Amino acid sequence: MDRAADGILIGRTIDLNADAGEGFDAVDAAIFPLVTSVSIACGMHAGGPSTMRRAVELALEHGVAIGAHPGLPDREGFGRRAIAITPAEAYDLVLYQLGALGAIVRVEGATMAHVKPHGALYTMAARDAELADAIASAVCDFDDGLTLYGLAGSELIRAAEIHGLAAAGEVFADRRYGPDGHLLPRDHPDALVGDPVDAARRVREMLGGHLPSAEAPDIAIEADTVCLHGDSPGAGEFARRLREELLRMGLTIQRPGRAGMSEQSAAAP
Amino acid sequence: MDRAADGILIGRTIDLNADAGEGFDAVDAAIFPLVTSVSIACGMHAGGPSTMRRAVELALEHGVAIGAHPGLPDREGFGRRAIAITPAEAYDLVLYQLGALGAIVRVEGATMAHVKPHGALYTMAARDAELADAIASAVCDFDDGLTLYGLAGSELIRAAEIHGLAAAGEVFADRRYGPDGHLLPRDHPDALVGDPVDAARRVREMLGGHLPSAEAPDIAIEADTVCLHGDSPGAGEFARRLREELLRMGLTIQRPGRAGMSEQSAAAP
Amino acid sequence: MDRAADGILIGRTIDLNADAGEGFDAVDAAIFPLVTSVSIACGMHAGGPSTMRRAVELALEHGVAIGAHPGLPDREGFGRRAIAITPAEAYDLVLYQLGALGAIVRVEGATMAHVKPHGALYTMAARDAELADAIASAVCDFDDGLTLYGLAGSELIRAAEIHGLAAAGEVFADRRYGPDGHLLPRDHPDALVGDPVDAARRVREMLGGHLPSAEAPDIAIEADTVCLHGDSPGAGEFARRLREELLRMGLTIQRPGRAGMSEQSAAAP
Amino acid sequence: MDRAADGILIGRTIDLNADAGEGFDAVDAAIFPLVTSVSIACGMHAGGPSTMRRAVELALEHGVAIGAHPGLPDREGFGRRAIAITPAEAYDLVLYQLGALGAIVRVEGATMAHVKPHGALYTMAARDAELADAIASAVCDFDDGLTLYGLAGSELIRAAEIHGLAAAGEVFADRRYGPDGHLLPRDHPDALVGDPVDAARRVREMLGGHLPSAEAPDIAIEADTVCLHGDSPGAGEFARRLREELLRMGLTIQRPGRAGMSEQSAAAP
Repeated sequence: MDRAADGILIGRTIDLNADAGEGFDAVDAAIFPLVTSVSIACGMHAGGPSTMRRAVELALEHGVAIGAHPGLPDREGFGRRAIAITPAEAYDLVLYQLGALGAIVRVEGATMAHVKPHGALYTMAARDAELADAIASAVCDFDDGLTLYGLAGSELIRAAEIHGLAAAGEVFADRRYGPDGHLLPRDHPDALVGDPVDAARRVREMLGGHLPSAEAPDIAIEADTVCLHGDSPGAGEFARRLREELLRMGLTIQRPGRAGMSEQSAAAP
Repeated sequence: MDRAADGILIGRTIDLNADAGEGFDAVDAAIFPLVTSVSIACGMHAGGPSTMRRAVELALEHGVAIGAHPGLPDREGFGRRAIAITPAEAYDLVLYQLGALGAIVRVEGATMAHVKPHGALYTMAARDAELADAIASAVCDFDDGLTLYGLAGSELIRAAEIHGLAAAGEVFADRRYGPDGHLLPRDHPDALVGDPVDAARRVREMLGGHLPSAEAPDIAIEADTVCLHGDSPGAGEFARRLREELLRMGLTIQRPGRAGMSEQSAAAP
Repeated sequence: MDRAADGILIGRTIDLNADAGEGFDAVDAAIFPLVTSVSIACGMHAGGPSTMRRAVELALEHGVAIGAHPGLPDREGFGRRAIAITPAEAYDLVLYQLGALGAIVRVEGATMAHVKPHGALYTMAARDAELADAIASAVCDFDDGLTLYGLAGSELIRAAEIHGLAAAGEVFADRRYGPDGHLLPRDHPDALVGDPVDAARRVREMLGGHLPSAEAPDIAIEADTVCLHGDSPGAGEFARRLREELLRMGLTIQRPGRAGMSEQSAAAP
Repeated sequence: MDRAADGILIGRTIDLNADAGEGFDAVDAAIFPLVTSVSIACGMHAGGPSTMRRAVELALEHGVAIGAHPGLPDREGFGRRAIAITPAEAYDLVLYQLGALGAIVRVEGATMAHVKPHGALYTMAARDAELADAIASAVCDFDDGLTLYGLAGSELIRAAEIHGLAAAGEVFADRRYGPDGHLLPRDHPDALVGDPVDAARRVREMLGGHLPSAEAPDIAIEADTVCLHGDSPGAGEFARRLREELLRMGLTIQRPGRAGMSEQSAAAP
């Protein structure tokens, strides 16, 4: 491995996050040990009151940071289809879901640490400043100590900063970007990165402050968290190997967020 | 009118409540001026994030007490069909809805004052002590300053008291009771009271501490709140006339609840 | 009234249609006597199995033509918010709803006569040729004897014709058009026509083969059906007076469609 | 293996069925090769228009019989929680779902062969003669050539016979029965049979015309179809081994139903 390039990673930290509470308990059980934060579906695109409670309890068992994963009200489309909502509707939709999860988190004696919009709400908010503002505003009004996760370099990150929220730029290890800095659609032939070593190299490159040079080198970003997926065949194994590669590079895997949060030691094996 | 009977009402107060935020804005606009508290649907049997916000804003305009109206997740059946949920599911379901409405209420600068289960959740909790306990427990864990509305004399009222919650016994002016103290089903030939003067007389009788003598005289109750309906043809007019009758009897119409809440003066016209 | 202009209406027919089965039985009961065809919500944006059956039975009582009103799966937004569905998803979505209503219609001994997409599905299909093709294709594959209702002059009408379906161009008496021939959004200051006499004059003008001269005179259309609304305060009265005006102009109000269908005599009173 | 006991199986046939279209494409892909009929979720407890189409296409690829799997409208509870619906509502609910799937099946050039109620609708219909009658009536009115799958020996089988429908008695290889002939609840300590050889022996015993002697020996049944599950860890392997055991016993695995349907040869390996 290139030690010069590795040099930049010593002392650097990264959060690994996963979506949770989407109704597949086996997926949650497999991915929670690999990550430092989870974003729990809040009953609109997936999940529901009792699923949310189970996910919170599992997060507590594994000591991972708990976040909300608010989505569009579209179970059939799993929140992945854009719905033409107004900023006011987006504000209400996010606030509702934060409130619902927040109540469950509180009675479990836990703390909500972050919010990450799901699916089409996430990608819409990455491009649409007005929508991003509405979402950041709802998060801020609910709890201004929350960290807002969004696509690194996107409008949602800008909106978080405008509202004074901590922002966590999310980068995708296993998805390629277009030249505009947004993810290639899933059905694009180059969309997916299949090799965990390649995926780890991409993360390393993005920690340098820009999207991968082969994709969108001019887009400046801050990479704070990497999304791991557990819900497709082979995804768990990919996630495990990507995590190992990141540790081997000298990264500390640690959840972002509020001061005083415990961190996960991550010495290379 | 019988002055002796009236005597008992001097100095007595009653709350008039209505269901709200069920998606019929015109109904809300018509009934809010007549009541002192409203219970807002929380997105399971009816309503949704933006409907809830509008209902909260309307409640603030009218100065009526705001409560949550959590229901079963059954839009098609409007929450009126029993679903066999466990107590644990009931707890989660109520907590979720309280959290969602609570967040909206808070950003509006308002206060949530009470909780009234909706439809089949209400009637199930009136009979089933375990379910009632789960609901009261969720309310208590969310905010032990909330008042729990339930069928006067029912298990839900008992559960509220066990958990140390303020309880408001609800009586029905326009629905008749069976000898067991539960409401006759809607399709029973004697279920409905059509005349607002009769309805007011029934309330007066129930303020005496028992269900109407022609129905279930041996069931001891405390009557704290009366439900007004706005969602059927003629319902608004019935509600208006019932309210007038109650004022004429000398009752003070006033919302229940936390100390320091403003009250609505209700001198007879 | 201008007799020369009236001349064109002698012998002309127009269908009056209304949306139905949206869960407001009182609305259905008020509007059915005024129309010649109804489009029944199929459980996605509104309605459900039992609501659909009641609407079919009411349609049979009133002798009005029965159609399907398939919509997007968005109860909270009442199907009025665009959802980014693929043409393949649109095909499946429409086919599903046609099948569901078709089964109910058949056991009631009735006949399905037409299909009218609802809300955002309707407006999306008016502009998007690919989506319009998918919808027309689903209708055709389900029953090629059905009439497809769409915005007069729109892509959906063209798609119906390409697929060999009977098409009914719908015009709006109470909504104004933009210069592109599409409806002004509901929140545009000029969107609504409040006077039923004006509304009737607009219909008369559109029967001349183009959209109103003050709005989009160069858009050629065929006006076959007019939508009456029953679900807002005053809507029933507006609909009644518009209908009277249309009869006064000499129009025959008659449902479109399959040969042999009975028609409603509509001599001026 | 006991050859005398095996004797009864020579020439006997059994259908293996699985639930399908519940949104887990990987589960469908794994279980379809093992079964002779599948029951497709119809959008109420799970699935939706496009999921249904994919399941129908997969069934055609595998040459398995296609059936409808209508359920209660409860996505969060996955249709497993009883809802207090009237027989009329049950009729409408089943008819709606049959119509929806029927339309999709028809445009795919396939044939619907059977109906199997899902979850709580299945267990309710096993005990409640009135509900069973409503369901059988809906099936019959939709297509009296359909086979109705129900718990062997239950009210639903009786209702099918009363309505002149072909009935297929379903037995459970991996679930134990109570003395009343109904399944033990999932949370009962003896509910599950973990060993596929034991499971196969139970099927062999039930083919003798009564429930297992250790459970409910006096309940007479006809065993026509066995449910295989694919949706829990290890379920696919269990299903594969159970199938092998049944073949080893000399059973012919074959879908039930309409004359002229092709059968699957099932010689022991």
